[in-house]
Amino acid sequence: METLIKHKKENQFKLIQGNVCAPQGFMASGVHAGFKKKRKDLALIYSKTISSTASVYTQNKVKGAPIQVTKAHSINGRAQAIICNSGNANTCNANGEEIANEVCALVGDALEIKKEDVLVASTGVIGQPLSIEPFKDGMNDLVEQLDEEDGSEAAQAILTTDTDIKEYAVEFELENTTVRLGGISKGSGMIHPNMATMLGFITTDLAIEPELLQITLKEVVKDTFNMISVDGDTSTNDMVTILANGEAGNQLIQSEAEPALQVFKEALHLVCKELAIAIAEDGEGASTLITCNVLEAADKLQAKAIAKQVISSSLVKTAVYGRDANVGRLLCAIGYSDAEFDYHNLDIYLRSENYQSVCVCEEGSTVSFDEVKAFEILGTDRLSIDIYLYEGKSQATAWGCDLTYEYIKINSAYRT
Amino acid sequence: METLIKHKKENQFKLIQGNVCAPQGFMASGVHAGFKKKRKDLALIYSKTISSTASVYTQNKVKGAPIQVTKAHSINGRAQAIICNSGNANTCNANGEEIANEVCALVGDALEIKKEDVLVASTGVIGQPLSIEPFKDGMNDLVEQLDEEDGSEAAQAILTTDTDIKEYAVEFELENTTVRLGGISKGSGMIHPNMATMLGFITTDLAIEPELLQITLKEVVKDTFNMISVDGDTSTNDMVTILANGEAGNQLIQSEAEPALQVFKEALHLVCKELAIAIAEDGEGASTLITCNVLEAADKLQAKAIAKQVISSSLVKTAVYGRDANVGRLLCAIGYSDAEFDYHNLDIYLRSENYQSVCVCEEGSTVSFDEVKAFEILGTDRLSIDIYLYEGKSQATAWGCDLTYEYIKINSAYRT
Repeated sequence: METLIKHKKENQFKLIQGNVCAPQGFMASGVHAGFKKKRKDLALIYSKTISSTASVYTQNKVKGAPIQVTKAHSINGRAQAIICNSGNANTCNANGEEIANEVCALVGDALEIKKEDVLVASTGVIGQPLSIEPFKDGMNDLVEQLDEEDGSEAAQAILTTDTDIKEYAVEFELENTTVRLGGISKGSGMIHPNMATMLGFITTDLAIEPELLQITLKEVVKDTFNMISVDGDTSTNDMVTILANGEAGNQLIQSEAEPALQVFKEALHLVCKELAIAIAEDGEGASTLITCNVLEAADKLQAKAIAKQVISSSLVKTAVYGRDANVGRLLCAIGYSDAEFDYHNLDIYLRSENYQSVCVCEEGSTVSFDEVKAFEILGTDRLSIDIYLYEGKSQATAWGCDLTYEYIKINSAYRT
Repeated sequence: METLIKHKKENQFKLIQGNVCAPQGFMASGVHAGFKKKRKDLALIYSKTISSTASVYTQNKVKGAPIQVTKAHSINGRAQAIICNSGNANTCNANGEEIANEVCALVGDALEIKKEDVLVASTGVIGQPLSIEPFKDGMNDLVEQLDEEDGSEAAQAILTTDTDIKEYAVEFELENTTVRLGGISKGSGMIHPNMATMLGFITTDLAIEPELLQITLKEVVKDTFNMISVDGDTSTNDMVTILANGEAGNQLIQSEAEPALQVFKEALHLVCKELAIAIAEDGEGASTLITCNVLEAADKLQAKAIAKQVISSSLVKTAVYGRDANVGRLLCAIGYSDAEFDYHNLDIYLRSENYQSVCVCEEGSTVSFDEVKAFEILGTDRLSIDIYLYEGKSQATAWGCDLTYEYIKINSAYRT
């Protein structure tokens, strides 16, 4: 089981309080600028020194204007600040890129840095005109309130339908240097593998070349942020961005062969995984986090395809909500994944947080099982579905949530 | 618009009452045999003479036992009866194929035909043992009640969560011979392009070689049954089967070049389209049929990919339920389809049954529109979303439904 296997590795990474401000040399703030009615809606993350940067973006062909501008500003692999508003996605607006550029210029002026060193993100309703005024109104407070200690205001300001902030930070040793890595994320609906209305901002005081940072981030996102789904909708504005300012003082990581890169990659995997799980767990209307582990698979792609399909199935998601151990729906979802496999071999277990488990399918056929125990396990806040293929040594994990009345309520009247 | 374009062609096909019994030489019946608590759950369709037959099946890798048996029995392109139970899918049961074979033998004995000329289908809960007893108990009544006039008992007996029977029949002239074509279908949840818990049984008195029947059915299903989605779940048991017994007395259709084949294909398209739309319209918990027309596309595949993605999006489906003209969600869904296109060109119209329409997006950007009118249009029972790509002359249509509280209610407690 993934949790068990990973456990040993995770010990070398010490969980610490905080988020994007945990690494040295970073500050953050969040204010209410007027995109939303009352709640905070404008966040700023700032590094005192210029940082290496890397980003991954939505694969939706309709891309938000901020993504185009952030791509352009990341081209040299360097950045110093990230500005993000919530409440309006600035997507499919005729003057969207113009506005996004203007926002970067405002931030550049206020922080006395180049506008090209500012990255921009937006999340919220698509296709509504976005005015520059709230950015102007909020900028003074935003810069004044930049805080070295506490990034939770920024974590608040990037939320939309999320019910809570999402943050995670770790500390680890790299050749006698202490390095910190922290992040915040948001996302609740329109969440599907390959990014989603999902934002992740990660900071670290590691010294690393931007090319290596990009390669590492891309690989890690494949197994973390891209393995969650709330509703199968891939948003236009998703992005995960990391800033690495080198303030930890480690020897600059310059090649893929360095052992330090592997340690950093594992730390980044842990942070991204926890930030991604927080999104799935806070899925719109969700009451249960569903973790699907596909084990003993022929290869990783096969395992991923099946894990993703299971957590994406509306019928599996409603069955979990109803605490119904509906094996047929599990087998059905496994069967329409893209993976090739022989379903006559597979076993399925349902497992709760406290490692209670029940086998519901053996060699592709349903077996009689303790329905009371299954009902109890399905009532857990964190349900695992373990699928053993017995075809090889690969495995993959995907995270999703149940589908509830509350999801319909939230989304049938989102814009109006 | 597809409806307008197709209208002329449809005039040559006269809508007639009835379904699988409309063509000459067919009988049908439906009884309560005990798979379900009260409602009818066993259907029989019988041709007095041996028929050409063709079928298409689910693409789910986990396939129901009845599908394996029907495939084996169809191998010579001939069949004479179809037996179908509802309430139990006979899938993922260790002795599933044995039971399905036994069912065919029972029918063969009762009708005095070869068991290899009997096709079998099942729909309902997956992974529950299926006993032969209800088939034995119901067989006498089923055969005694075979009716030449009225197939509605059979149409009833194949339903699961459907709220109403689905039937359609047409009559058309083929070189001075009157030919009839009729069908029944079922499906309400676990419905997604590439078949679904969806059954279609079609009969015709046309004389046609089985190979041509297979080619024609396969092509027609691609544009009809495979263009609907209710919840993105592709079932294990789907099949569409046609029997053609030649009783109309037309000259046997033997080659693809014959003009008569084209006429038949159009009639089959019409019947399959109406049976498929009936499924989408009766989607679990649905209040609105959503038709997505993609127009002026570069090619058919592009148009199909976009149309399917739009009707499959949970966020589009909940927005329609909430009567929210949420253009952003439409653009987002269009954007994450597999199709390649330039979204900067596209226009989107919302259109009601009575051809009221409102333009909500021009050249890829949202435009201000009459919100009251849009709200009215979204309140229609049959909503059309017309997407103009302006890239070529191809078009495609997909059908779906809104996502409502009722869907959650039905599916969170289906098995228990």
